[in-house]
Amino acid sequence: MTKNTQKITPKKMQDILYKLFLKYKFSKEKAQLMANVHTESTLLGVHSHGINRVPLFIEYVKKGIIKIDAEAEKVESFGSIERWDGHFGSGVVNASKCANRAVELAKLNGMGMVALRNTNHWMRGGTYGRQIADADCISIIFTNTQPNMPAWGGKYSRIGNNPFVVSIPRKEGHVVLDMSISQFAFGKINNYKLRGEKLPFVGGWDSNDQLSNDPEEILLKERGLPIGYWKGSALSIILDMLATLLSAGDSTYRVGLNEYETGVSQVFLCIYPEVFNDKELQEKLINEIIDYTHDVEPMNPGDKTYYPGEQSSKTKTKNLKEGISVNNSVWEKIVELSE
Amino acid sequence: MTKNTQKITPKKMQDILYKLFLKYKFSKEKAQLMANVHTESTLLGVHSHGINRVPLFIEYVKKGIIKIDAEAEKVESFGSIERWDGHFGSGVVNASKCANRAVELAKLNGMGMVALRNTNHWMRGGTYGRQIADADCISIIFTNTQPNMPAWGGKYSRIGNNPFVVSIPRKEGHVVLDMSISQFAFGKINNYKLRGEKLPFVGGWDSNDQLSNDPEEILLKERGLPIGYWKGSALSIILDMLATLLSAGDSTYRVGLNEYETGVSQVFLCIYPEVFNDKELQEKLINEIIDYTHDVEPMNPGDKTYYPGEQSSKTKTKNLKEGISVNNSVWEKIVELSE
Repeated sequence: MTKNTQKITPKKMQDILYKLFLKYKFSKEKAQLMANVHTESTLLGVHSHGINRVPLFIEYVKKGIIKIDAEAEKVESFGSIERWDGHFGSGVVNASKCANRAVELAKLNGMGMVALRNTNHWMRGGTYGRQIADADCISIIFTNTQPNMPAWGGKYSRIGNNPFVVSIPRKEGHVVLDMSISQFAFGKINNYKLRGEKLPFVGGWDSNDQLSNDPEEILLKERGLPIGYWKGSALSIILDMLATLLSAGDSTYRVGLNEYETGVSQVFLCIYPEVFNDKELQEKLINEIIDYTHDVEPMNPGDKTYYPGEQSSKTKTKNLKEGISVNNSVWEKIVELSE
Repeated sequence: MTKNTQKITPKKMQDILYKLFLKYKFSKEKAQLMANVHTESTLLGVHSHGINRVPLFIEYVKKGIIKIDAEAEKVESFGSIERWDGHFGSGVVNASKCANRAVELAKLNGMGMVALRNTNHWMRGGTYGRQIADADCISIIFTNTQPNMPAWGGKYSRIGNNPFVVSIPRKEGHVVLDMSISQFAFGKINNYKLRGEKLPFVGGWDSNDQLSNDPEEILLKERGLPIGYWKGSALSIILDMLATLLSAGDSTYRVGLNEYETGVSQVFLCIYPEVFNDKELQEKLINEIIDYTHDVEPMNPGDKTYYPGEQSSKTKTKNLKEGISVNNSVWEKIVELSE
């Protein structure tokens, strides 16, 4: 804990966020859900999409970009797949509802999918991966975003970092991949800049159109690097296509026409593995993979390998014990907003 | 065309491969399918998993690793998801059958999934992406492999490059992402070595456990780099988990216990977007994304951006006109084997 941060208990964070969201006229149910989700994300160590994002969220609410009373509704369905319209409501509320619906469909049919359009930023994608895993289902979910990376070969940012989430339920801790398609989030790049450090690997282009690990240079033009260069570029494009055509919603292109990032498209695909009566075998197979990758000499002394989601689960355990470190000015801002 | 290569027509390639597979006792139907698939992959420019891979395939057949008479069969099913056992038959024949079955399920239910275990290398994953797109469906498919990359932080190769395919049907040319999770395939790294060139980016670890772009160094220990470093490592792990638990098949760990790469697990997930009556809108939305990313100044003069699958489609058009360049020694070997 530095002098710029203070420890907040999860209970305190939840209470103040609940109060804040109520003040901004969200229903009790929505306010509770959003307070839980933001607190949980922060507990897991993802401050950028937890507590730190709250002031921006409130700004969007004030501007009317996020509609307080909107309810996501089903607009079309066929068998195990459905299309929903989020009517520009809270991204967290909409995503949570659609993730639940995908679980219901999967438990009926083995698989279910909800494609959601006209929604807002879902904050931390892993939220819905863990929610679906808590319901004993596998998830494959993704969202598009505003343009923030160049397509490979192009000069300007025209593809999104389109977070991609896969989760698998597991007794000893869910396996949760929650990754954006950019090598580094701009928030992370900015943290390097503030610390006066270079990125450990190239993370975007400088003003001379060269790949760079200089955070200051990259932030000048905000052209992030896709993971795997041309590969992540292609992955980003096709995820955007899937989210857009399945939901009949806005693509990264269309989202980029707005002044603010809103109206994004998302897909919640869910598989219920318990339709096969071998839950124990499935756990054993997953644990074998975890043991095999854990039980290996590190590349650099002291390093460790992790399964997806393992580190954030450990952070949560630590934060539950010690309280959550929150930046003083972020916390003061939120307290002020809530009063 | 260099002096080491010759031009072969697709018809000639197909005929000789058909003859070869028949000689090795595959049924007419299987021989035809495999001859088509290998020719098509080579037409698309993916020689490594087309014509160049045939001698190794025949070696596996001779060793009994690939079972000539095996027929993939359904072992369990629930609603729109099924488990199949490939009984160690031809990876191409098994994958093609399961891709077809996933299409059938999707056309009934909106979505369908087949998880296949005990199969062999499917050659080019995009084959099944295009097959499913030809049937007007979206595909999300992946396979595990033998271990060939270190999990992030670990010293030895314990995760697979697990090719991942997503395809979307489109009138003017399907969109097909076909990527392995490694930054460079070892075959490509070897090509750089043969040409005495460095890789354009780091692609694996050298003998001193440092990331390197020296193909010779990387090939010494065969520790490939996942795309996006820690991100691709996590993606590889979770794809392996999905393929393994959904099929109740072998994981990369178990595949690695065999002397040869066999018994891999695969997932064929299929969505039928025409359940929503707006095919034209869907095409329009996809084409908007393509136009937006195409219509951009290049980062480097002369560069171009492509949508996933665009370049291989262009290569096919060129090869259909000019014939396919094939390495002389590869072609001679195949002719010899077929006689």
